[in-house]
Amino acid sequence: MIKAGVIGATGYAGIELVRLLLSHPEAEVSAVSSVSFEGKPISSVYPCLSNIFGSVLTEADTVIEICDVVFASLPHGHSQEIAAKCSAAGKLFIDLGADFRLESADVYKQWYGCEFTHPSLHDEAVYGLCELNYEEIQNAKIIANPGCYPTSIALGLYPALINGAVYTDGIIIDAKSGVTGAGRTPTQSTHFPELNESFYAYKAGEHRHTPEIEQTLSQMAGQPVRITFVPHLLPVNRGILSTMYLKKGKKSLSEVHDLYIDFYADTEFVRVLPLGSYADIKNVKYSNYCDISLHEDMHTGTLIICSAIDNMVKGAAGQAIQNMNIALGLGETTGLKFIPPAF
Amino acid sequence: MIKAGVIGATGYAGIELVRLLLSHPEAEVSAVSSVSFEGKPISSVYPCLSNIFGSVLTEADTVIEICDVVFASLPHGHSQEIAAKCSAAGKLFIDLGADFRLESADVYKQWYGCEFTHPSLHDEAVYGLCELNYEEIQNAKIIANPGCYPTSIALGLYPALINGAVYTDGIIIDAKSGVTGAGRTPTQSTHFPELNESFYAYKAGEHRHTPEIEQTLSQMAGQPVRITFVPHLLPVNRGILSTMYLKKGKKSLSEVHDLYIDFYADTEFVRVLPLGSYADIKNVKYSNYCDISLHEDMHTGTLIICSAIDNMVKGAAGQAIQNMNIALGLGETTGLKFIPPAF
Amino acid sequence: MIKAGVIGATGYAGIELVRLLLSHPEAEVSAVSSVSFEGKPISSVYPCLSNIFGSVLTEADTVIEICDVVFASLPHGHSQEIAAKCSAAGKLFIDLGADFRLESADVYKQWYGCEFTHPSLHDEAVYGLCELNYEEIQNAKIIANPGCYPTSIALGLYPALINGAVYTDGIIIDAKSGVTGAGRTPTQSTHFPELNESFYAYKAGEHRHTPEIEQTLSQMAGQPVRITFVPHLLPVNRGILSTMYLKKGKKSLSEVHDLYIDFYADTEFVRVLPLGSYADIKNVKYSNYCDISLHEDMHTGTLIICSAIDNMVKGAAGQAIQNMNIALGLGETTGLKFIPPAF
Amino acid sequence: MIKAGVIGATGYAGIELVRLLLSHPEAEVSAVSSVSFEGKPISSVYPCLSNIFGSVLTEADTVIEICDVVFASLPHGHSQEIAAKCSAAGKLFIDLGADFRLESADVYKQWYGCEFTHPSLHDEAVYGLCELNYEEIQNAKIIANPGCYPTSIALGLYPALINGAVYTDGIIIDAKSGVTGAGRTPTQSTHFPELNESFYAYKAGEHRHTPEIEQTLSQMAGQPVRITFVPHLLPVNRGILSTMYLKKGKKSLSEVHDLYIDFYADTEFVRVLPLGSYADIKNVKYSNYCDISLHEDMHTGTLIICSAIDNMVKGAAGQAIQNMNIALGLGETTGLKFIPPAF
Repeated sequence: MIKAGVIGATGYAGIELVRLLLSHPEAEVSAVSSVSFEGKPISSVYPCLSNIFGSVLTEADTVIEICDVVFASLPHGHSQEIAAKCSAAGKLFIDLGADFRLESADVYKQWYGCEFTHPSLHDEAVYGLCELNYEEIQNAKIIANPGCYPTSIALGLYPALINGAVYTDGIIIDAKSGVTGAGRTPTQSTHFPELNESFYAYKAGEHRHTPEIEQTLSQMAGQPVRITFVPHLLPVNRGILSTMYLKKGKKSLSEVHDLYIDFYADTEFVRVLPLGSYADIKNVKYSNYCDISLHEDMHTGTLIICSAIDNMVKGAAGQAIQNMNIALGLGETTGLKFIPPAF
Repeated sequence: MIKAGVIGATGYAGIELVRLLLSHPEAEVSAVSSVSFEGKPISSVYPCLSNIFGSVLTEADTVIEICDVVFASLPHGHSQEIAAKCSAAGKLFIDLGADFRLESADVYKQWYGCEFTHPSLHDEAVYGLCELNYEEIQNAKIIANPGCYPTSIALGLYPALINGAVYTDGIIIDAKSGVTGAGRTPTQSTHFPELNESFYAYKAGEHRHTPEIEQTLSQMAGQPVRITFVPHLLPVNRGILSTMYLKKGKKSLSEVHDLYIDFYADTEFVRVLPLGSYADIKNVKYSNYCDISLHEDMHTGTLIICSAIDNMVKGAAGQAIQNMNIALGLGETTGLKFIPPAF
Repeated sequence: MIKAGVIGATGYAGIELVRLLLSHPEAEVSAVSSVSFEGKPISSVYPCLSNIFGSVLTEADTVIEICDVVFASLPHGHSQEIAAKCSAAGKLFIDLGADFRLESADVYKQWYGCEFTHPSLHDEAVYGLCELNYEEIQNAKIIANPGCYPTSIALGLYPALINGAVYTDGIIIDAKSGVTGAGRTPTQSTHFPELNESFYAYKAGEHRHTPEIEQTLSQMAGQPVRITFVPHLLPVNRGILSTMYLKKGKKSLSEVHDLYIDFYADTEFVRVLPLGSYADIKNVKYSNYCDISLHEDMHTGTLIICSAIDNMVKGAAGQAIQNMNIALGLGETTGLKFIPPAF
Repeated sequence: MIKAGVIGATGYAGIELVRLLLSHPEAEVSAVSSVSFEGKPISSVYPCLSNIFGSVLTEADTVIEICDVVFASLPHGHSQEIAAKCSAAGKLFIDLGADFRLESADVYKQWYGCEFTHPSLHDEAVYGLCELNYEEIQNAKIIANPGCYPTSIALGLYPALINGAVYTDGIIIDAKSGVTGAGRTPTQSTHFPELNESFYAYKAGEHRHTPEIEQTLSQMAGQPVRITFVPHLLPVNRGILSTMYLKKGKKSLSEVHDLYIDFYADTEFVRVLPLGSYADIKNVKYSNYCDISLHEDMHTGTLIICSAIDNMVKGAAGQAIQNMNIALGLGETTGLKFIPPAF
């Protein structure tokens, strides 16, 4: 059994990782850490784990020492030091935070206000969008697990961009995320009575996932791509739906749909829906699937792409395990074939 | 007291009209009709009205006969005959359905599959977007109450379009509506367990409100405007948020904001939020307000406009009463100054 | 116009008071205070009030100085000093907190851990359950607005207890409250993802409203009454449903129902539903109504009473205004005849 | 691999069975039937199953013919004929409906209005509450899977009743269920806008699960037990919380708690929470666990027991599979160790 450890295990992505790893047939959760709850059993923080997993929360260094694979789910700025220690100890490190996602130190500094403290580790790190970077991930020792929004968007746009089926200017992305995306810490805006029956946009044109999305889309398109990205907060627990607007090229909707079907034919977790169906966060929740639906506004020549994921699974913990599976040579889907419940 | 009547009073827009009219200081609800529940007290259909309003549901003709003002909230195709009767009887008719919203018989037929059976009534009818057509409404006898999506969008775009602050091509409108917009009839897709914790787009590029929106925006811009319009279903009861993407002209965001502030300075129900704030359906629910916030993606030159209304008030019953007030020479805001609750 | 002021105006009960007072035809909101947001306009804390009410939050003493009626919505222990100042200044004081609800200093100390610092004020204070204590409230200068649970329970049990229609031992009360009852301060347990799709009991047999409920029921019954009271947290914004179980005496369900109908015939805000109907928090939300339904388990001889209120209106701000109306000789229902919306 | 089949696979319990069986390591879903959707792939009815399970819905007889184990999830009155066919064909039959739960033909007729058409099958049938009837289930060919409410209640009361820790008269059970309990068919009362933000009791003292509950509790207590049972509808998808009120005997709360701990020590799926904790439907959702918490109202001598299950798993499909496991000699927990997600 692979010894897996989670640093920052009591955050929402961390606890989801623990849950998924506990049912992984080839891994075990050997250590979990938390600054806030060190010394307490994790089941005292999350009673859903009572009688299932009672590991006492320890320190990050202990996790690194004990485990073969170290996952970290921490605020940005905290992962580089951990990566360095994992690297020195020869451990596979998978970062669910933002520190290794951006290739440019300048862009990272501009958006996150931090430095690349270990530039050589950044050179080594691989961007873990599994369906795109499978081969690189196979040899990786440091994997940057993509952000939740970027995952839904990159998967939704990949076949269109690499095949030139759309123009790369004027791309509009209107995304909506469930509240778990805001993390575990209570705030006024996530207080139940203020969020229930509400809906609004936030960080329009200035969300930190913007440069990550543009970096990935630019690589796909082979040229710089700029997007307008506006996220919204949905009053649901889980799920991201990204609705994307692109100027369609000469291919018909049906031809573009065929491109998608072909492109994702060999992947397990991306489902291209039949034309006429709409991606719904309900149909992917608690699963590692990404559902993509394609639509067209014929009178404006606009291709509309809807991409739905569970932000905590394919958008965080599930993809992190998928990365582990690839990097360690396990079957990519091992321990991840959760069937989305009907309700 | 003005004798007001509601045809189709047990639908969602109808019952909301009843509720609002019951607290109107210069009107009384003199008759209500319903095909489905004729002969029953309306409070047996809506127990929230127990001990408050127990009027027995009657026939449409009775409503027309008794009342000075007739509101109809019916499926499309049913209002023209009623309008003809009201016209013959000299009654003010306010239609919450779609029959009189479109100026072109061809466009109406294309999108709704019905004919203009009384063309002269269509010539006479006024589009009741109060903040835009105030003067015309003053003399109207037949008023087409705008659709819910079109209301949020037209109010959100008006100052930008008439001032040429944006380009009129490539407008993208990503709208999200609460479930009451789907009406009172239960369906599989509105069954609680299927909608709760779900989110998806529907009728992308083919929603029937599209021609109505384009008709209004074209009038504002003084040239044909085409939009890409994609609505989504929000798992909340009330509210529409329209997020609109436009290519900004030379005016700065601050200058555009000033245009909005000035333009709506004398209106009661449109609130232009300070820059940095975001329109939220929570802040307008149960009220006749439309909240508008302006944002900019500087690196793509995109103006982002968020417009929030309560789909059942400003998007239906509230605006209908506002139209009545204007047409009858009452104060425009009479009986409509509901304060949105904090939760 | 009566000058009304709210101390603690940015808490949930406080802001609801502000909202309701703003539409009161014979009162105006002359001052509002908040320790947390002193110096800021109240609309900056609650943007739903933008363009409607922008009063700057001040100090408690200023509210007392300026206003004829002072409402306070504060944590327990803070109202006695304010009551003393109001009393000295001859102002009507209505307390939405717990300080004046209990008659016994010992019981207050046992459950709240505080002393009666001004015993004479307690002698003077009247328990403001309007339907029961109407006459006393008329002459009151200090009114203790009842708790939300106690209001729903007392109204639901009053006719049965004073008429001896039930046994007074073994009363079980299983109550469920919307989340606004927990107040405005964000906590882990009210964080949206932790509360949404959850449901649980809390403080079983030890909630602070227990002695208040027993005090009221004992007065009704003319003998000491003990209850078992278990509250639960509902994942909705507003509403309390109390389901109450009592051993029925010799009267039939129909006879008990008649008692209720008769007893509440002259009240405006209590609606006794027809037999066969069930009280639903939906049908009273945003209103001052209390809906009561009566049921019977014939094979165990149990009378089941369901009582539904909006915890923030009849359970807090609405009843507070009702108390003001009575104490100042206005019509009891002035400014309070809100019609519950259908959705 | 065991060939499992589901009759009534497109109802909510049916589709949940399909989902759980698809991840069972020793069973495969060999046939599914549906009257409403016969001839269609099940994934066209439930798109969450796209690319996962596309079996075409067939007839009940085909399911019986093909499979080793037949599950039926049908309205009452339809299972006896199926049981007869399974019995004749030597197939294990597990009924998620009500037809085999009651031992008395008279009681069945009184509450369900149907006859025992095959009395000998009723003699043979075993009540499949796994934690109580483990031994009988091992040899069963016809298993009546318990109702959702009865499961939560029987597990919550068992140790108290068999140990005489409580009086058996005056038991009050106030239960609350998520909406999936009402099934897949849309109705006015389950239409999203009517149920969202609502809460109410239904069938007070007359719910059909009452005789089933009393039958089980009477067996436990060794004497006739009558209960007062009032269910409520919670605006959430999944979960039942039963709050139960009993007169406590001489044992202290701590002693009763020890009884529970001991009694359930060897079971996998019942978790007795530490004193001071409260059972929450959130902590068992999507799992086969039943969480039980014990509380006391010392001043009335009342024992309060909260019991939480996922109504669709331990209350339906999960327990049905647990029954299959036991009857076929598989490990009881095989394919059922789902970890409840934190959100």
